[in-house]
Amino acid sequence: MRVVLLAGGTGGAKLAAGMQEEIGGGLTVVANTADDIETLGVHVSPDPDLVTYWLSGEIDEERGWGLRDDTFTVMERMADVGAPNWFSLSDRDLAVCLYRAEFLRSGGRQTDAQAQISRGLRIEATVLPMCDEAVRTQVLTEHGRRELQEYLILDGGTPRVDGVELDGIAAARPTVEVDTAFRVADLIVLGPSNPVISIGPILAVPGMREAIAASPAPVVAVSPYVAGAVLKGPTNKFMEALGRPTTAAGVASLYAGLIDAMVVDEGDPDRPPADLPTLAAPTLMDGAAGRVRLARTVLDYGASLIDA
Amino acid sequence: MRVVLLAGGTGGAKLAAGMQEEIGGGLTVVANTADDIETLGVHVSPDPDLVTYWLSGEIDEERGWGLRDDTFTVMERMADVGAPNWFSLSDRDLAVCLYRAEFLRSGGRQTDAQAQISRGLRIEATVLPMCDEAVRTQVLTEHGRRELQEYLILDGGTPRVDGVELDGIAAARPTVEVDTAFRVADLIVLGPSNPVISIGPILAVPGMREAIAASPAPVVAVSPYVAGAVLKGPTNKFMEALGRPTTAAGVASLYAGLIDAMVVDEGDPDRPPADLPTLAAPTLMDGAAGRVRLARTVLDYGASLIDA
Repeated sequence: MRVVLLAGGTGGAKLAAGMQEEIGGGLTVVANTADDIETLGVHVSPDPDLVTYWLSGEIDEERGWGLRDDTFTVMERMADVGAPNWFSLSDRDLAVCLYRAEFLRSGGRQTDAQAQISRGLRIEATVLPMCDEAVRTQVLTEHGRRELQEYLILDGGTPRVDGVELDGIAAARPTVEVDTAFRVADLIVLGPSNPVISIGPILAVPGMREAIAASPAPVVAVSPYVAGAVLKGPTNKFMEALGRPTTAAGVASLYAGLIDAMVVDEGDPDRPPADLPTLAAPTLMDGAAGRVRLARTVLDYGASLIDA
Repeated sequence: MRVVLLAGGTGGAKLAAGMQEEIGGGLTVVANTADDIETLGVHVSPDPDLVTYWLSGEIDEERGWGLRDDTFTVMERMADVGAPNWFSLSDRDLAVCLYRAEFLRSGGRQTDAQAQISRGLRIEATVLPMCDEAVRTQVLTEHGRRELQEYLILDGGTPRVDGVELDGIAAARPTVEVDTAFRVADLIVLGPSNPVISIGPILAVPGMREAIAASPAPVVAVSPYVAGAVLKGPTNKFMEALGRPTTAAGVASLYAGLIDAMVVDEGDPDRPPADLPTLAAPTLMDGAAGRVRLARTVLDYGASLIDA
């Protein structure tokens, strides 16, 4: 079974790990790159790398981000000589980001840099940046326009969000690899990541919605709401900024016209999205077993839609 | 006493450490940057950093280069994902080189990057790159033209050397800081580094010899030959390529017209340079005591020339 999973941060990345357990190389993850940031001479790609570290098994599961047992020698030394250090990168993480920066500066494509990283870390699944062009999420806050990482880290994600802009989006295009993945997919899944700042930028790439719509595969969204709440990250703040209910139905409204069905949490107190085939199931990804269970649920539900 | 020391690799760097012990902030080191190399997205400046690590006390004294007890986490990880790894950089060393690269990419001067690094590592003496322009030593070998680091590391420093070229030298100029240091110096010392590829590029910067000559300070060279031999590095190969005897007199011939006197090793079997005031003294820098002894010897000898 060939599955394309759209993913951003933690939720999507965990589901990717569960799906890789089930279908191995059949999985292609299209990852949001609008969170990318160039800092300290390196190119940080938070979402593709988070997915990658979940797939390579190197993630610090307890913390939910970063590499297990990594050191911070380089950042600390750079801070010693005067570099800013608000954006923290551990050594093995920084190495990957430095490799990517140099690869891009040498004229390489981000898609190929990520492929090299996946090969080096012996990942079975394929991780594709959503595009090779630079797209950068700008958060319109009560205090002005901020880069996403600045908003999340420097501002602590607390100021009111009035909207989101995607710098560079007009010039972006799905890569050949992304296009091909959709064309040959048996199932397309929108992962349980932030619908506004993680899945949103992927779908905003001109041509992306069309490529998904043109695929014969059914499209299933997985709601990020577990028992009515988002487990991690400022999803509600961004849903509210777009005037959407902070519920699975609100998420479905953002994906209207694109998805064929949705998986929602069986413990969700909110009503399921109207007029949309919905499977209610346990969606909490508690440990490896929880990730595989949700992956299996989504894959089986998707398969039933293919047969239908 | 204000002393300007011209330095390249190990010999000059060790003498710098000895001099800093004696005169602290009175010492300014003008360091060769023609060994610099951009690799893996960082800007490596081997000679200024070697001097810096001797001055900060962080050098691995036993090995003679690199930082004591440093790790190689980043390089190893970069190699994992496909980066070349012939040029080895330990983590805290790489951090400094990444900081420098980003500083330069942002439009900063190399002089200011090095000053930041010195401040960060709390070095008393001043370390000045010889210029802010990019100058790169090319080695003409029996197998063709090689970058210096390629010759030393990839070729193991073994092929025959037919000559040396300095890419970019015509556009280089001594910085304001270097010019000022010479103008206010009480003594100028050419350190016991490779006269061809370490001291040579510094003197080849257009205007450098003139700036030294215009200084009222006496100029003393310290021979790198100890008991007739060079302790480290391929000095003789490069002396021969220039048709010079591999002796203190050969070194003096390269500095002709520039230096007022020379310090040679008292155990040197070769005759001292003709027509040049010479002090024969122990020049082996064995441990901290040896470095301070040679520093004291050179400073006292220099002081006698000022009085003269």
